[in-house]
Amino acid sequence: MNTTTAQLINATELLAHWQGHRALTRRVIEAFPEKELFNYSIGGMRSFAGMVMELLGIGAPGIQEIATGKITELNEHFEGITQKEQLLKLWDEATETINTYWEQIPEEKFSEEITVFGQYKGTTWSSIFYFIDNEIHHRGEGYVYLRSLGITPPFFFERA
Amino acid sequence: MNTTTAQLINATELLAHWQGHRALTRRVIEAFPEKELFNYSIGGMRSFAGMVMELLGIGAPGIQEIATGKITELNEHFEGITQKEQLLKLWDEATETINTYWEQIPEEKFSEEITVFGQYKGTTWSSIFYFIDNEIHHRGEGYVYLRSLGITPPFFFERA
Repeated sequence: MNTTTAQLINATELLAHWQGHRALTRRVIEAFPEKELFNYSIGGMRSFAGMVMELLGIGAPGIQEIATGKITELNEHFEGITQKEQLLKLWDEATETINTYWEQIPEEKFSEEITVFGQYKGTTWSSIFYFIDNEIHHRGEGYVYLRSLGITPPFFFERA
Repeated sequence: MNTTTAQLINATELLAHWQGHRALTRRVIEAFPEKELFNYSIGGMRSFAGMVMELLGIGAPGIQEIATGKITELNEHFEGITQKEQLLKLWDEATETINTYWEQIPEEKFSEEITVFGQYKGTTWSSIFYFIDNEIHHRGEGYVYLRSLGITPPFFFERA
């Protein structure tokens, strides 16, 4: 007889939670005017496109590394990306990459200690939570950019 | 013979994760000059103190309601809070309240469907993730306020 421990959250639920956030981030990218997406800044910070490139450098490559064990170097710069459509295309490709490699992570690996991008130590879950939290953080910054441009951002609670 | 399912994350880890975020949010409150904490705004948004009051209205009361099952009305306004010290005191009291009531939530309850503040439906975990994500979101907005005031915010990755 097996007694299973109730899962607080399972891997499928966590992926759906993240992809819901990623769908919202995509709408925030879309909400920016073409020019301001790449050039607008407050207080000496990066453009929102610059922040999105950081997210693109972390999310899909991070999950690929966790799934395969093959260490990659952190790269947050994407040459030649100067248009919203290019950024959205990279975003959609990352969505697929995350879904593909996520399936290859065994559930028991989530509590294991790992090192990501050859330098960041934590458990698998804490690493993935960092990816998600970092996205929410920068997207929150993007909301202020939009508001200061007179643009109403998408609702925070809409994730579909 | 019992076979236990590996937990992706357990309740103790999730609490520590959130309290780590809450410690960072406390440092962001501290980083604001007294006056700007309550008066500074970009793009017609609330002051950071206004956002913090929303967080205070959600986090501790939400956990208390989840633990006790006693429905409370969502209250995001705190009368007479006009100083940083008052806000930090409320923050620290919320830290204790969250810790106290968290212990009273059985682990199996995290996957159950609940309604919070008498109106928001979800699982226990998705409700709590909302509390955390909403805090990260508004704190990200606060980072832009600080940067635009010429103040360097605390490191996002420091949570102790």
